[in-house]
Amino acid sequence: MATDSSPAAIITLTTDFGLSDPYVAAMKGVMLGINPRALLIDVTHDVRPQQIVQAAFLTQAAWPHFPDGAIHLAVVDPGVGTGRRAVALETPRGCFLGPDNGVLSAALPDELRPARTPAPTVVPPGYRAYAITEPRYMLRPVSATFHGRDLFAPAAAHLSLGVPIGDLGERLDAITALPPLRAQRASDGALHGRVLHIDRFGNAITDIRADDLPAREFVVEVAGRRVPGLVRTYDEATVLSALVGSSGYLEIALRSGHAARELGAGIGDAAVLRPA
Amino acid sequence: MATDSSPAAIITLTTDFGLSDPYVAAMKGVMLGINPRALLIDVTHDVRPQQIVQAAFLTQAAWPHFPDGAIHLAVVDPGVGTGRRAVALETPRGCFLGPDNGVLSAALPDELRPARTPAPTVVPPGYRAYAITEPRYMLRPVSATFHGRDLFAPAAAHLSLGVPIGDLGERLDAITALPPLRAQRASDGALHGRVLHIDRFGNAITDIRADDLPAREFVVEVAGRRVPGLVRTYDEATVLSALVGSSGYLEIALRSGHAARELGAGIGDAAVLRPA
Amino acid sequence: MATDSSPAAIITLTTDFGLSDPYVAAMKGVMLGINPRALLIDVTHDVRPQQIVQAAFLTQAAWPHFPDGAIHLAVVDPGVGTGRRAVALETPRGCFLGPDNGVLSAALPDELRPARTPAPTVVPPGYRAYAITEPRYMLRPVSATFHGRDLFAPAAAHLSLGVPIGDLGERLDAITALPPLRAQRASDGALHGRVLHIDRFGNAITDIRADDLPAREFVVEVAGRRVPGLVRTYDEATVLSALVGSSGYLEIALRSGHAARELGAGIGDAAVLRPA
Repeated sequence: MATDSSPAAIITLTTDFGLSDPYVAAMKGVMLGINPRALLIDVTHDVRPQQIVQAAFLTQAAWPHFPDGAIHLAVVDPGVGTGRRAVALETPRGCFLGPDNGVLSAALPDELRPARTPAPTVVPPGYRAYAITEPRYMLRPVSATFHGRDLFAPAAAHLSLGVPIGDLGERLDAITALPPLRAQRASDGALHGRVLHIDRFGNAITDIRADDLPAREFVVEVAGRRVPGLVRTYDEATVLSALVGSSGYLEIALRSGHAARELGAGIGDAAVLRPA
Repeated sequence: MATDSSPAAIITLTTDFGLSDPYVAAMKGVMLGINPRALLIDVTHDVRPQQIVQAAFLTQAAWPHFPDGAIHLAVVDPGVGTGRRAVALETPRGCFLGPDNGVLSAALPDELRPARTPAPTVVPPGYRAYAITEPRYMLRPVSATFHGRDLFAPAAAHLSLGVPIGDLGERLDAITALPPLRAQRASDGALHGRVLHIDRFGNAITDIRADDLPAREFVVEVAGRRVPGLVRTYDEATVLSALVGSSGYLEIALRSGHAARELGAGIGDAAVLRPA
Repeated sequence: MATDSSPAAIITLTTDFGLSDPYVAAMKGVMLGINPRALLIDVTHDVRPQQIVQAAFLTQAAWPHFPDGAIHLAVVDPGVGTGRRAVALETPRGCFLGPDNGVLSAALPDELRPARTPAPTVVPPGYRAYAITEPRYMLRPVSATFHGRDLFAPAAAHLSLGVPIGDLGERLDAITALPPLRAQRASDGALHGRVLHIDRFGNAITDIRADDLPAREFVVEVAGRRVPGLVRTYDEATVLSALVGSSGYLEIALRSGHAARELGAGIGDAAVLRPA
């Protein structure tokens, strides 16, 4: 797709701060105080409070659509004020800032992420990670309760002005990463996954990837129901049906209905794909 | 009102995607990848899922306040991926993009819309409509589930860069339009309308137009209650009262209360105005 | 913090209009029609309908983080269309526009606000207040139901273009102000305050200021419970605990829980701090 030759400095925001509190506005005010030309784009602020896996999923679903060089803030930070590190991660496609609790996994390719559980993970070639520790790029005094405002927002704004990422603090060899959001194949050929997200339409989005679908018919077991696959459009989902959603994940949909409610399914529930 | 001589390229967004999912951000990322200088303004993303009439009402309530030449995206699209057309409509006041399901009625004057039911409607002189079919202006591969991202967003962004609307695809003689959002006068002189929208304050907004109000006192029957008219301000609505809201429609209000809840009224309910 | 030498014209918005209705978009359209280069930043539109004290709290929590010279709209306006004045207030840090019902208190230092109840308050040296009455800077005809769109938005946009604030209308000697959002010390040394806001995480934010905390241990009585203080981070709040939140107010928090719900506390409830 055509891109302009001088893209604006885009900073995206993904948080669990909601829009009813002054927290997001405080972050934006701080960033505009540093770089009044930063272009601030909300991904979502409705991550469920402190749900790191969901935050990683939502960040991962959004960032690839932004131009290269964008800066992505992902601040879901139950450990704010503790010893957990604050990280800036440079990738071939942009910069990602957030607490070192796994949320930055969204920026890492699957093959570099730990297999089963969150774990410290080597920063791969082509990527560089830094601890954000340089007081000069913080809003001081730094609170123990709101590093989104005091630490991540100013770091992002300074990066958007051209401050070298290496100036933010010491380089890190490893950061915390989550396992890939990808159902695992069992010895019987079934794919064992789970529900990652339920969207506003009630679609239950699983971690079963389009790439992993079998060529022949299958069923997905969710919440004790067997849902047949595969339809192509929401319009065809006249009964509970599996289709490939816009992020490349299998989801359970119901036309003019709310699939997750109809299923009684919630985030984290098992979703198992078997041959029909 | 004074306008600047070089207005920014404004693109407004009205959808039923909500703000909890990554969908709106994906659309914005795609647009900024094409035109990093586009000015993206949310109208609302809280249209009730797949409610085309409500989407048309909300778009119609917002767009006239934007400068001429703005581009308006209205994506409420239950038929995504089916044969329904994607349309770009140029009007004397701006461009409107959306599925050909009636939502673009928001851009058409009442007198050109069908009388009673949604119907194909001739594109009037001064307006031009095109099917969006040119792959060059799409995000490829085009999914069957998210044309907001893959088709409408890129088309809007290319228009904002100056791509001629005629380059998007073939010209259309007619598009689907909804009847005017306007109560009908019956032979007994009563105005037969309905509730179009309930706002955050609980005001029940009807399709009875200020222009159609009688000179003398009247009552509005909604949900079995008879509400007297007319007060001028919300402050005067110490009991359930009718007043002319900011979009020129009659609404039922209650000071320090929630009129719709008090009435037990919902969207689509009949609202009939009779002489008192 | 570093600031750019030519900051953009920032206009922030704090309202009770929500994001489901077309009201905020109408305001933005009007402003962009006047100044297409205005940078419009939402603080929040989720003030509870017509809650002026909450609006003042949220505005006050956000605006100090924005660059000097920003324009702040605070439109919570139950008296729209009545005789209540519309005010533009210039301060050493920026301009504030809103109805003269106390919401603009957010811009005034505590020591200049009335001690106990909302009251007309002399505009202090260094500040200038004006009634917004000049029709030239309004969207005409001015409705009786939406001054956010017809009066405050155009005034803000014209100010952002450099129109002198004195051109908006006659100068005012006094405006309505709320008492400081600050717990009062009783003769027994206790601080008598209340719950100002409950955030998305369930933190119950009181008007007890960090500056007023005793050096030794204390308890906060809220909703019949005695909550000990002081922890430093949310992570330490393994039971209901008091900590200093990011706006400098004492709040009651609960890690991985919803403190306000656990307490049964609501906005406006008493919060009393006593020595332990």
